[in-house]
Formats: sequence, C-alpha cells, structure tokens
Amino acid sequence: MNAPDTRRLAWAYLSTVAQGPSRRLADAVAQHGPEAIADAVREGTPGSEISRRTRGRAHLDSAAADLEMVARLGGRLVTPDDAEWPAWQLLPFGSLTTGTDSDTGPLALWVLGRRPLDELFERAVAVVGTRAASGYGEHVTSEIAGDLAVDGWTVVSGAAFGVDAAAHRAALGVGGTTVAVLACGIDRAYPSAHTVMLRRIAEQGAVISEYPPGTTPARYRFLARNRLVAASSSAVVVVEAGWRSGARNTASWARRLGRPVLAVPGPVTSAASQGCHRMIREGEATLVGNAREVVEAAGAVAVADDGDGSWRRSLDGMSGDMEMVYEAFPAVGACGVPELSESAGLDVDRVRAALPLLELAGLVSRDDTGWSRRGGQNGVVGM
Amino acid sequence: MNAPDTRRLAWAYLSTVAQGPSRRLADAVAQHGPEAIADAVREGTPGSEISRRTRGRAHLDSAAADLEMVARLGGRLVTPDDAEWPAWQLLPFGSLTTGTDSDTGPLALWVLGRRPLDELFERAVAVVGTRAASGYGEHVTSEIAGDLAVDGWTVVSGAAFGVDAAAHRAALGVGGTTVAVLACGIDRAYPSAHTVMLRRIAEQGAVISEYPPGTTPARYRFLARNRLVAASSSAVVVVEAGWRSGARNTASWARRLGRPVLAVPGPVTSAASQGCHRMIREGEATLVGNAREVVEAAGAVAVADDGDGSWRRSLDGMSGDMEMVYEAFPAVGACGVPELSESAGLDVDRVRAALPLLELAGLVSRDDTGWSRRGGQNGVVGM
Repeated sequence: MNAPDTRRLAWAYLSTVAQGPSRRLADAVAQHGPEAIADAVREGTPGSEISRRTRGRAHLDSAAADLEMVARLGGRLVTPDDAEWPAWQLLPFGSLTTGTDSDTGPLALWVLGRRPLDELFERAVAVVGTRAASGYGEHVTSEIAGDLAVDGWTVVSGAAFGVDAAAHRAALGVGGTTVAVLACGIDRAYPSAHTVMLRRIAEQGAVISEYPPGTTPARYRFLARNRLVAASSSAVVVVEAGWRSGARNTASWARRLGRPVLAVPGPVTSAASQGCHRMIREGEATLVGNAREVVEAAGAVAVADDGDGSWRRSLDGMSGDMEMVYEAFPAVGACGVPELSESAGLDVDRVRAALPLLELAGLVSRDDTGWSRRGGQNGVVGM
Repeated sequence: MNAPDTRRLAWAYLSTVAQGPSRRLADAVAQHGPEAIADAVREGTPGSEISRRTRGRAHLDSAAADLEMVARLGGRLVTPDDAEWPAWQLLPFGSLTTGTDSDTGPLALWVLGRRPLDELFERAVAVVGTRAASGYGEHVTSEIAGDLAVDGWTVVSGAAFGVDAAAHRAALGVGGTTVAVLACGIDRAYPSAHTVMLRRIAEQGAVISEYPPGTTPARYRFLARNRLVAASSSAVVVVEAGWRSGARNTASWARRLGRPVLAVPGPVTSAASQGCHRMIREGEATLVGNAREVVEAAGAVAVADDGDGSWRRSLDGMSGDMEMVYEAFPAVGACGVPELSESAGLDVDRVRAALPLLELAGLVSRDDTGWSRRGGQNGVVGM
C-alpha cells in the first residue's frame, strides 16, 4: 500500500475525532474540505459546537497508525472522494429536516472486504431482529435471507446474536453476499463468539463501520449503526422483535430514509413476534412471509418475475439517471420536467422515466406545483 | 303453543319455497305482505323471476307441520313482525347496490334457544376460520373467544370443525353466550359429531338458520350462511384460513356490510395462516392478537376500558337512536341534521350524537352536500 496522502489522513483523523455521526462536522467538511476542517479541529478553532464535540479527542492523531493497521487486516477507509462511496444510498440523509446533529450519513467508512461498496449496496436488503430469536424466527430468517442471497441480493445486518447471525449465516451458506455493519471498530469482533463468522462475512461481502479501529461498542453507537443498516438497504425486514426492540429503531430509520419496512408475523403467543405484530397493526410495516414478497417491496425499481422463480430488475442501469435527476433538484421548492431535464443534462423522456422511480423510493414527490425533494418522516410504507 | 295465525303460516311457507336469500321475494313481501305473496306463490302468479325460483317448491306447503315440529324442539320462527327481529343488524343489506338476488337479508329465521335475537346480537363478534385448524389455531381461538364471552360478547360462528367449534366451545366453557348459524335446518345436527355441542349452544345462546326444518346442507347454502354470520356480528375475526377459504367469504361479506374484518397471524410456515396473512397484507383485514384488540374494532360505538381489564360500552342504549336516525334518511341523496331531526322525531343533539356512530359503522357518510346512506362495497376496514 502506498503511503496515504494528507487528504486521506485528514478523513481518518476526522473519523476518529467525530466518533459517529455529526451533521455540523459533515456540513463543514462538505464546505471546506477534510484537510481544512482537520487542521481547524486540531487547533480547536472550528465552530463552537464542533469544538465541544471534538475537543476531548482532538489531540489523538492516530490516523496514520489506524490506516496502516486496517491495511494490514486487508481493509481500507472509504471516503466521499472514492468512486465506490455509496452516495446514492446516503442521499436521503440530505432530505432529513429535523436538524438533530446525528441525522446525517457517515463521514467515512472503514471497510474489510474486497468488493466496492457501491456494488455491494446496489441490491441490498437488511434482515434484522431480536437477539432472543425463537427457533421459528431463526428458521424463517434463514429461509428469507438464503432466498434473497441466492437471488443476488446483498443481505445486510448487524452481526448480533439471533436474527442477525441467522441472516448472515444463511447468506454465507448459499455462497451469497452479506454485509455486517458494526457499532465498533472493524478490528474488533463483536460479539466475540462471532469472530469466525465476521471473517467469513469480510471474505464474501464486507464488514463495515463508521467508527475507527479500536472503538468499543456502546449503546448510542448501536443506535447510530442501525441508521446505516437502514440506509444501505432497499428495504428492511424485521423477522422477530420484542415489544421494545433495536429492530424497531432500525425500522424507524428506514421510514425516515424512505425505505420500505417489512415485518414477518409469527404466533400471537410468541413474545418474540410482538414487535412485528405491533408494527403491522399500526401500519408501520407491511406483512411479508417470504423472500418474494420482500423483493416486491425492495424493488424501488420494478422487479419482474421471469416465471422460473428468478427475479429480474426490469430497469437495470436506471440508477445513474435517477441519481442525476435527483441531484438536479433545487434544495427547496418544486420544479418541472423541462427544468430537471436541462439541469440534469438528460432528455425529457429519461427524466420522465426516472421521476416515478424516485417517487417510489420516497425521495421526491409531486403536487400541483410540480416535483420536489421529499424531506423528513414520510416514507413509502403503507403504499 | 297457540295455533299459528295465517300470517305466521305465510312466513313459514315463504321460507320453505324461497330456500335462502331472494331479494325480489323479500322486496315483494315488504311491499305486499307475506300473506298476499304466499297466496300468489301458491297460485304461481307473482313476477316471473319469483315464480321461476319458487315453482319447484310452491306445492310443498309444510308450514304448519314445520312450525309444530320446531315448537316441539323448543324453537320458533322469528319474522320481521316480531319485536326480537334483529332489524338493526340486517339494515346494511338495504344499502347493497349490486342487485344480485342473493344480496339480501333473511326472510325469516328459525331459532332454537330461549333468548330474543336482538338481545343476542347486540354485542356479538363472529369468530371463524378453517376446518383444518392447527393446534395453534385452536388454542388462539379458545383464548380470544373465551375472553370475548367472559366480557359479555356473543360469539357467533358456523358450528363447523376446527376454528368454529373451538370458538363455540370456548364460549360455552366460560358460561358465555354463543350462536351457531347453520346452513341446514335447525332440526339437523351438522356436522353430526357436533350434536351435543349444538344442543348446548341452543341452551346457552341460539342455533339459527334461514332454512326450514329438514333442509340439508349444500355448498351454496354455506355461502349464504356466511353472510348471516357476518351480518349478525359487530366484527368478524378470522383465526386461521387457508389461501382459499370459506372464512375469506365471510370476511368479504363483512366488508360489504360495513363490519370490521380482523385476522390473527401465525407462523408464515403454517398453511393454515396463509389466508389470514394475505388478508392483512392486502389491507383486507386488520391484524389482531387478542380479544382486547378485537373489542377495539368491534366497538362501532366507542368502547372504554375501565382499567380493571373489563370493557364498557360508553354509549349503551344508543342503538335505538342510531336506528331511528338511519331510518330517517332518504333512500337516495344527502340531507342535513335538521331534516333528519324532524324526520326521526329526535332533537338535533341526539341526531348529532348518532351520526358519527352510524358513520363508524359504515352505514352513512358525509360530504360537502350533507349526510347520506352508504351503499355497496365500502366498509370500515382500514380505517
């Protein structure tokens, strides 16, 4: 590996001092670049909120050591500078309007695994649920995650006990692709019982984290991690969840980010299914019973059944247009197809084809005044 | 028992020749009275459709014998002439606009059991499902039906094997009230394995049928019976149902009649739950897991929890007002509160209190032009 340039060192440093999502820091970096903000943080001169957040860790410049250690593990730091940065998946964070400092995408991602992130996340479904999964829950998780993986979908989960582990293992078992999003550094195997599983996940997909090497898990990091699980997937499936459950937090992030939320029912006598039943009953999730129904929902772009049990994205390659059209929107207010066409540099037919897909994905909406970017809470759930 | 008068004999005769629902016959009876129509049927002179329907049985005047036989069994014929006629429950048939001849209430009902029908049906929930119930399905049926019965709700079902039988038995087991609606004569025990159960149902509630004594079950009679199960209840709960199931037919009738449809989920691996999952997924039914959630939906009038686990109808005695207001509506078109008040002979406050309840029950709706009766397919499902 070549020595990292100063810009990459700046990203690694910022990832260390940020320790998780910070909208203010991300905005500052977007505006001034990572090197300028890294310098400012080191000197304690950025805006007071950023200073307060980073003050405790500003002196810890382990960037070079972290990058070197991760490289030794076969990993890398992926930043918005890189072609593989999953910009499309992270777009909806830009529409969140609540203004909480944690309502933002990751600054950068630490990754173990060979394949580019944008490719891993192009067709991805999150399969999550309770650590206290029942035998039924583990069985159904295996069926759904295995079928999704066979069909070429990346199975994203959190590497926890129970539903998460069953989802990763099912994807691994069929030779599929799976991604674990951790709430600690990618050099840590958490839980430690999953050391071997995490190594296999890195081989067949990726282990990723927004936290720098050495970071230990903590409750608030799990909540931040859940938002990345939701963001990196075209739909979130909750297989089993108790009345209060981390999986419901992931589902709530999915709704905010415009991702369909799906829930698998179970016996009403099973505590492990109460959270799923509640979400279905209250209209927060759509009931699904198999991978086919998951794919129906995950296809923010249409999915067609070829009749032989395999599914085909009927609009492969549309993502590029969708992204260009989305980027062509003004930050605020509505506009029409001709303006979008001009701004995106695409002809009107391609704009017209992309808009309904963006609408299905919960990213834009239409009213009397034209098309506009969608913000905040409204997702595609309940459509 | 006194000798039946000629009018009651006419009802019994018409019930025999009609053999199930006939809107044309019911309309003719409503217009000209049972005796005139009975005479006309005997002589073969009514409208051609009614003649065609009744021709084969017009000569079979077993009315006196049927009434006597049913009286010997401790039963009776209940007709729209009787105070106990469940007119309120049967009202929605009047709003069905498809015009199929079977889209109508029963002409009359043959009943075994001591308590008046209107009282039995005032707080009633149908609990139905597949004959091929799983152990799980029978368990959940028992829990829900038992809890409903303890809370004073009449449990209505069809006396079939599986979910139906579990529902009746649970109500009987807690000393509650239960009603079996049969697709054959009330003198027949069908299925015969349920002879003892049906006797107990008659003792603790009622066994009812629109078919005269001696009628044997047939497929089209089960479908017609399902509409009475739906009509006599404030909500229909489907506990288990296969992909194609009679219970879904009952649910479909419930939707047409403005009754909430509820479905209990189960393992996605269980064939017996596929129909329930499909109804929930497609928005045809609301997921419920216990009696409490059933009561929430069945309360077309508000139901309040007293905090000690018992529920209280907060608007006891409102039914009379609701019925009077409903009857005051013009058959077609909208009207305002003052007109309804005058026509119903109730002061405007009572009309204003009744209207939202009628709206919740799916019987009336409001738009810019005022209040009007609702027709056809729209129910309260998905509210």
